[in-house]
Amino acid sequence: MSVVVQKFGGSSVADPDRVRAVADHVARTWRRGTQVVVVVSAMGHETDDLLHLAAQVSRSRPGREMDMLITAGERKACALMCMALHDLGVEADSLTGSQAGFHTNATHTNAKILEVRPNRVRAVLGEGRVPVVGGAQGVSPARDVTFLGRGGSDTTAVALAAALGATACELYTDVSGVFTADPRIVPGARRMAVVGFEELLEMTASGCPKPAMRSVEFARRQGVTLHIRSSFTWEPGTWVREEDPSMESAVISAVTHDTSEAKVTVQGVPDRPGIAAALFRSLADHDVMVDMIVQNTSEEGRTDISFTVPGEHLELARRTCEAHADELGASRVLADAAIAKVSLVGAGMKAHPGVSATVFEVLAERGINIEMISTSSIRITCVVRTERMEEAVAALHDAFELERPLV
Amino acid sequence: MSVVVQKFGGSSVADPDRVRAVADHVARTWRRGTQVVVVVSAMGHETDDLLHLAAQVSRSRPGREMDMLITAGERKACALMCMALHDLGVEADSLTGSQAGFHTNATHTNAKILEVRPNRVRAVLGEGRVPVVGGAQGVSPARDVTFLGRGGSDTTAVALAAALGATACELYTDVSGVFTADPRIVPGARRMAVVGFEELLEMTASGCPKPAMRSVEFARRQGVTLHIRSSFTWEPGTWVREEDPSMESAVISAVTHDTSEAKVTVQGVPDRPGIAAALFRSLADHDVMVDMIVQNTSEEGRTDISFTVPGEHLELARRTCEAHADELGASRVLADAAIAKVSLVGAGMKAHPGVSATVFEVLAERGINIEMISTSSIRITCVVRTERMEEAVAALHDAFELERPLV
Repeated sequence: MSVVVQKFGGSSVADPDRVRAVADHVARTWRRGTQVVVVVSAMGHETDDLLHLAAQVSRSRPGREMDMLITAGERKACALMCMALHDLGVEADSLTGSQAGFHTNATHTNAKILEVRPNRVRAVLGEGRVPVVGGAQGVSPARDVTFLGRGGSDTTAVALAAALGATACELYTDVSGVFTADPRIVPGARRMAVVGFEELLEMTASGCPKPAMRSVEFARRQGVTLHIRSSFTWEPGTWVREEDPSMESAVISAVTHDTSEAKVTVQGVPDRPGIAAALFRSLADHDVMVDMIVQNTSEEGRTDISFTVPGEHLELARRTCEAHADELGASRVLADAAIAKVSLVGAGMKAHPGVSATVFEVLAERGINIEMISTSSIRITCVVRTERMEEAVAALHDAFELERPLV
Repeated sequence: MSVVVQKFGGSSVADPDRVRAVADHVARTWRRGTQVVVVVSAMGHETDDLLHLAAQVSRSRPGREMDMLITAGERKACALMCMALHDLGVEADSLTGSQAGFHTNATHTNAKILEVRPNRVRAVLGEGRVPVVGGAQGVSPARDVTFLGRGGSDTTAVALAAALGATACELYTDVSGVFTADPRIVPGARRMAVVGFEELLEMTASGCPKPAMRSVEFARRQGVTLHIRSSFTWEPGTWVREEDPSMESAVISAVTHDTSEAKVTVQGVPDRPGIAAALFRSLADHDVMVDMIVQNTSEEGRTDISFTVPGEHLELARRTCEAHADELGASRVLADAAIAKVSLVGAGMKAHPGVSATVFEVLAERGINIEMISTSSIRITCVVRTERMEEAVAALHDAFELERPLV
């Protein structure tokens, strides 16, 4: 009998009605003769509420105790899910990460899975019951409770699917799949029936909100087929699988955007070895997460270095650069929160060298200035003004004819 | 080094400020050189909130899943307590019931402790750290999470104190000890410095709200000294220990009251063997909890049987009796919610046969009618009208001079 892992995120189980709706779907899958393993996140915003509670109680918040606190959320959700299944005549057993065999390292708040030994999950399945596993949790070598971090429920689901040899890992969420662009910005955006792992990784890294990038990497490595779909409409969503090398890929699959970052420019630094290293070392020492980095061509021995950081790190980044400005020989530090990243992703890009040129032309025709550029083999990212972002996304979506269904 | 168990109930840890206040007290105890083991209940009304959530999700609510759900409350509280202790420079480790070695039977929602193997608790103490244990939880032989039921945190504390050979088990609550009467009713009510186990058991059985009766029985059996005290004033409270047979006990220690019960009277039943048995069997079959039972003297071969039940069982009890009235040969069934139980408790009562007479005189002088009477060797309970209860309690407290401190 085939096994399917069904993972439900926080919005899918946000309240009692939603828990019952999800249970109904699980019960229908189970009655069709499929062995179902359920993974649930904490209900709605509960994880945020618990973090807020911890902040009210403590300044230090040791990781071991944060994990004991946070994992209470998934525990509640999986117990409630089992109760709702029981009402529908489906016997189900909730399992904590530890009970489900998730052995992790001791890096609290962001633990890594060392091994999955799903003996109890298999035993529950063997009794014709439905195992409901708390997402994002495990147990350390010292037998302490561990949390896999934000988005960790996706990782739990993928790891379980790999360990059980499941035919698919279904990630249910509040969107109905992966789109060629954000449908709020591009009305003609199309849900993709299939997307490759590599493409999805570039998309999640450049603004596509779901699923968690770490779980996509994990699924790719383990060869787990993902199905990203909606727990509100229940329609088929987007399948994620390894690109088939024999198939010709679409040149461009999707346009993504990200307004969560900000830009810092350090002007007039001497163009000599060691300057960039000193700058980014001091930023790293202050735990500033740097994403894109661009260094302009040198003029008269001096250059500008620009980089993007998460919006909430902007002030810290600016202060750090200013504190080191003299030492670096910089003339000025500029901070700019009003930027957006617009990215084109497509596995077929590798074989089509003209894509970048088209991107620049499309934006230039509309007078949209490109402030920074960064590329990978299957992605082109441009930084533009926030207020021109929507126009840029729509224009690129249109120019590459993403609305047209693939044949 | 001596070990003390400190248990904090829901009201003691109801919000972040209270969690920090409790942590401060634990830290002060620890700095005085005492090894402290902390037991915490769920914060405030969280257990009720979780029960309400379960009722919104499910009709069936299987016990195993209820326990997984409910125990999330204590888990959160003990994690937060450790964080607050950490802020104060006291290293602390939260432990679930399972981690603390509470092995229970598999009677979910009301599990019984089979054995306590506090190896991890001892290990944490041995490292100079403070173990903070989630109350009312354990693990079943099948390695499922179990809940010890309402008031189970007191039992956790007492069982840990016994297993560790602690010098005392301090039960912190929102009252400052055990009183000779409810201070809201009798302004001169006095906090007892010491009370015997037997007396406290009779008191908790007849209206004294704290601590949970089951834990007092457990403490008595295990020889654990209890100290019932306030987490709001932190003053010394009431010590509970085995009565010292060489000491002369006070004739009366306290007056308690209970307005949570109601009375049912089945009138005119034939006074012959088997009638009472049939009546109370049918009530038991309907899960009606019967407390006091009184059968009047027979008149012309017919008698009245009165009994008390929890107020919320009154309607069910009345309907059950009415359904069996013909079969029992009863003439009428009366239901009365407006009653109160007033009890006198005192270990010295055994040696003073005149106590009942005094009680009846005191109430008769004030024209307070006694509707039912029930006694044990150290307790006299009278059922009176609810509206006369306060007057009865005050009069008895006065007549037995309970305001006067013991010499």
